[in-house]
Amino acid sequence: MLLARRRGTGAWWADRKGGSVNKIGIIAKPRPDAKPLLEDLLKWLEARGIEPVLDLDTGAILGAGSGYNTCIKSSVPEMVDLIVVLGGDGTLLSVARLVEGKDVPILGVNLGSLGFLTEVTVAELFPVLEEVLAGNFTVSERVRLHCQVHRQGERIAQAVVLNDVVINKGALARIIEMETYVDGIYVNTFRADGLIIATPTGSTAYSLAAGGPILYPNLEALIINPICPFTLTNRPLVIPDSVKIQVILIKENEDVLVTLDGQVGVALRYRDVIEIRKSETRLRLIECPGKNYFEILRTKLKWGDAP
Amino acid sequence: MLLARRRGTGAWWADRKGGSVNKIGIIAKPRPDAKPLLEDLLKWLEARGIEPVLDLDTGAILGAGSGYNTCIKSSVPEMVDLIVVLGGDGTLLSVARLVEGKDVPILGVNLGSLGFLTEVTVAELFPVLEEVLAGNFTVSERVRLHCQVHRQGERIAQAVVLNDVVINKGALARIIEMETYVDGIYVNTFRADGLIIATPTGSTAYSLAAGGPILYPNLEALIINPICPFTLTNRPLVIPDSVKIQVILIKENEDVLVTLDGQVGVALRYRDVIEIRKSETRLRLIECPGKNYFEILRTKLKWGDAP
Amino acid sequence: MLLARRRGTGAWWADRKGGSVNKIGIIAKPRPDAKPLLEDLLKWLEARGIEPVLDLDTGAILGAGSGYNTCIKSSVPEMVDLIVVLGGDGTLLSVARLVEGKDVPILGVNLGSLGFLTEVTVAELFPVLEEVLAGNFTVSERVRLHCQVHRQGERIAQAVVLNDVVINKGALARIIEMETYVDGIYVNTFRADGLIIATPTGSTAYSLAAGGPILYPNLEALIINPICPFTLTNRPLVIPDSVKIQVILIKENEDVLVTLDGQVGVALRYRDVIEIRKSETRLRLIECPGKNYFEILRTKLKWGDAP
Amino acid sequence: MLLARRRGTGAWWADRKGGSVNKIGIIAKPRPDAKPLLEDLLKWLEARGIEPVLDLDTGAILGAGSGYNTCIKSSVPEMVDLIVVLGGDGTLLSVARLVEGKDVPILGVNLGSLGFLTEVTVAELFPVLEEVLAGNFTVSERVRLHCQVHRQGERIAQAVVLNDVVINKGALARIIEMETYVDGIYVNTFRADGLIIATPTGSTAYSLAAGGPILYPNLEALIINPICPFTLTNRPLVIPDSVKIQVILIKENEDVLVTLDGQVGVALRYRDVIEIRKSETRLRLIECPGKNYFEILRTKLKWGDAP
Repeated sequence: MLLARRRGTGAWWADRKGGSVNKIGIIAKPRPDAKPLLEDLLKWLEARGIEPVLDLDTGAILGAGSGYNTCIKSSVPEMVDLIVVLGGDGTLLSVARLVEGKDVPILGVNLGSLGFLTEVTVAELFPVLEEVLAGNFTVSERVRLHCQVHRQGERIAQAVVLNDVVINKGALARIIEMETYVDGIYVNTFRADGLIIATPTGSTAYSLAAGGPILYPNLEALIINPICPFTLTNRPLVIPDSVKIQVILIKENEDVLVTLDGQVGVALRYRDVIEIRKSETRLRLIECPGKNYFEILRTKLKWGDAP
Repeated sequence: MLLARRRGTGAWWADRKGGSVNKIGIIAKPRPDAKPLLEDLLKWLEARGIEPVLDLDTGAILGAGSGYNTCIKSSVPEMVDLIVVLGGDGTLLSVARLVEGKDVPILGVNLGSLGFLTEVTVAELFPVLEEVLAGNFTVSERVRLHCQVHRQGERIAQAVVLNDVVINKGALARIIEMETYVDGIYVNTFRADGLIIATPTGSTAYSLAAGGPILYPNLEALIINPICPFTLTNRPLVIPDSVKIQVILIKENEDVLVTLDGQVGVALRYRDVIEIRKSETRLRLIECPGKNYFEILRTKLKWGDAP
Repeated sequence: MLLARRRGTGAWWADRKGGSVNKIGIIAKPRPDAKPLLEDLLKWLEARGIEPVLDLDTGAILGAGSGYNTCIKSSVPEMVDLIVVLGGDGTLLSVARLVEGKDVPILGVNLGSLGFLTEVTVAELFPVLEEVLAGNFTVSERVRLHCQVHRQGERIAQAVVLNDVVINKGALARIIEMETYVDGIYVNTFRADGLIIATPTGSTAYSLAAGGPILYPNLEALIINPICPFTLTNRPLVIPDSVKIQVILIKENEDVLVTLDGQVGVALRYRDVIEIRKSETRLRLIECPGKNYFEILRTKLKWGDAP
Repeated sequence: MLLARRRGTGAWWADRKGGSVNKIGIIAKPRPDAKPLLEDLLKWLEARGIEPVLDLDTGAILGAGSGYNTCIKSSVPEMVDLIVVLGGDGTLLSVARLVEGKDVPILGVNLGSLGFLTEVTVAELFPVLEEVLAGNFTVSERVRLHCQVHRQGERIAQAVVLNDVVINKGALARIIEMETYVDGIYVNTFRADGLIIATPTGSTAYSLAAGGPILYPNLEALIINPICPFTLTNRPLVIPDSVKIQVILIKENEDVLVTLDGQVGVALRYRDVIEIRKSETRLRLIECPGKNYFEILRTKLKWGDAP
């Protein structure tokens, strides 16, 4: 059952917390118009005796002398029971990288239009928070990918992503060639502008623009999706997420990068090996009560109204 | 691991058989040029003391008075330990329907070009059979779909498919409208030429021509793929195979059918409900040793040679 | 220049009319909610001394005894200087078939949402009509296709279409095979659900849903677009509209039709030849002043707002 | 008629030459295995009293002291009556840039597999040359695009291309935004990885990999094709080639380039305007007798054999 897999997270929460939330981290997109909502949220928390912890950039929105606890962004997760992100999907992606290896859940609030990851609107924030504090919520556990880059046998980079690992060519580079293996079995040598390895969460991000399918968030699967492949029959492949994927650059090319969640990049060289596995930990996203994934799809992709 | 999921079927085979194969069913595509191979196969089995069981059409290829055991097609599965299909993917699909609820494995031999389901070439048949009889083989267990059609509360049809359930319009019909639910949750009302619900096995059949992704055979997932949707953002959806899918025809339309594995059709009426779940049993396909799924993809889709 | 090709139609109009419009045909989609607009339009014309001519169905919307001139639909074009269509693109397509060989222009008014062919909204109707009567308008001349079906050397059907000629299979039929020639040169044997031959006007109709490109309305080109082709590299072909296209059904198949503008169908048999050429006459669509084709695209396809 | 437009070039040739070819330019891909063919070609020309003119790189293949006329590549076109290119489509593209403004025809010979532009195989070279010298040949005249880049009102770059002008992002850059106008009319602001403006000749190059249609070579049209657009309904647009296209970068972004025929790149800045028009001159490609465009398509795209 679709739902059975997603709910039933009460036990995890109760185990961890004894049902109580004492500290909430707040990370906002650093733009001035976030200020009123931020101030409202701080008052709301204060009234309930919950201590807020802000990262430095979020503190800066309030201006000097606001007197709130602030710390560097990467320290927020270990100090709090829950993080509220105010921004868009990009902001949430950047926070997701920080909570790797911690089980603090995230509540994504979109400041503008509905996001795939930031389901909660500004209007819904306080009713939803009320429910969350009462323990009435479900968590969507999202698979992440652990990506390593190896050069001549040595690991030169690694990261964990929520959406995708993208190998792509620079603007001047011509077609690149990527020899690809799954669990050591040769799949194909993709000749393309690039290659996307996406999680179900990432299926509605870049991979969708590159012709990929939409994967239900809890599907135990990954997408291997070539970008503008030279061979027109190179269609998106969906495989179990239990595998190890290896991609080797087999053409000398000066301008190829691997980008992680579209935010961080590592320059690649000839013969570099990009190795991707499922991360051992999942991201815990608090779901907006009363919304479901299909409703978000219909809205974001303009499919039209429900009957 | 990709392979771990596919192998390890020795125990199942040993349990069932005590390691011995006494009777082999043979179902061939009824065309004259199948005769020489059929005769060779019969001699080969005779030399090993294995009794062949032929369906009536296959018996007819040999001509009257051949003296072999024949029976109606649907009785073959319960009489044998293994079925050899000589033909193409279409022939194998028609046999797959007959083995529903039985655990007899199938070995698919293609008489012409390589098939997705009929991996074994004529040249490979006897070496592969030798290995199979010795118990040296792996089985790919393929999910099937159980499809029911309900009209005004009554079930008017049901079937089990290996590839896909396709709801589609007749040639004269205009766009059809299909209200679609997953586990009772509203997904979308697809306005399209039709809707394909495909298994991973079916992902390389009709769904691929309709823009769908390729799903690795053991992935626990289904594809919901609209055919030429009016709304261009209605992209293929991949969801867990544990769900119940319901599709309701919500526009009066004289000429709509549901087709099962492209072979059997049921005429639909306004308000009919098509309900699809995973079948409780899987099809056991004997894999050709030394081949793997990606190799078959590369050959069938002309991706080019391995390095 | 894009515009130069579309405007400059004043001369044609002046030649034909001496600048005066005496009779206007009105053909409405036969639904009750068209009545108020229809009545307003009749009053508006009366006040200007212009005589309306209604087809029987449109007359019926007004009810018995309304006293207006009515005639059968196919006679309207020869009796009037201009036809106003109230409905959607489907209504306009059905009227387009009637004006073949006549040079009466059509003004398409959409009763619901914006159409590709019915650009004028209800709110814009009277201001636009005022401009049209004053001769201040441009006409978009749309290429039509002349389609003939030959069986054993005899022509069994012919028609002129504005959007497309579609050869497609019935719901139960499997893949069909269509041998295709352009000016007698062999192009390809398409194995597909069907084949669309579309005008630029038709490029935003069915062909778009089948993966085709958008052609600017005055482009002198046709699209040959296979529907869900078995061979994934069979991409849409755009060719000059000066050619003769011939499609031959080369597989016996009980259930194949050719449909014309999605409205009329002819059952096809094995070896039938469908022959398509540009029609000698074009359809004259009156453009809504102040709108342009790209604006209509942006609205219909939800591309977002202009800067 | 498809053919009528392509043939009838005898007059042009006779006018220009009086039917005689005295000098032939030879430009080969600089790789050692071109040497034997090059030597054969030189002997063949010598035997017919035709003087060869080689560019420096081609001369270098023969080694020092070969004694043949050589000159810098860009001077070859003005010195000869015909250019033979030995290589692939990439080599021919680079030569095409040099003949801008000259009417010397090009014969493309592929050293490896069939090219879209290099139709003649090594085996066909001498029979085809024999025919060409006798005046028995047709020329396919291909439209080229003239591309200019303007920065703050000044032209900073210009070039003529045969295939395409591509605006695309660097590997690290995120989505770019391109405000696009046709003849001064706003079309759309594409948010994508890039934008391809392709000729019919270029329709089978990069644009095809980015989901574009195939345009018959003599079609008087251009393709505007966004690369992996964020808005899924942004489909390829085909417009008359008589227009002026303007694309403006409207987002500050450090790493965007315009590439010309995939070979030359110009770094772009915020607010740069890329302006594209049809070039006044066409490229004259000598066609391989007995081949036609559809045959080349079928071979290159693996559509299967003719009946």
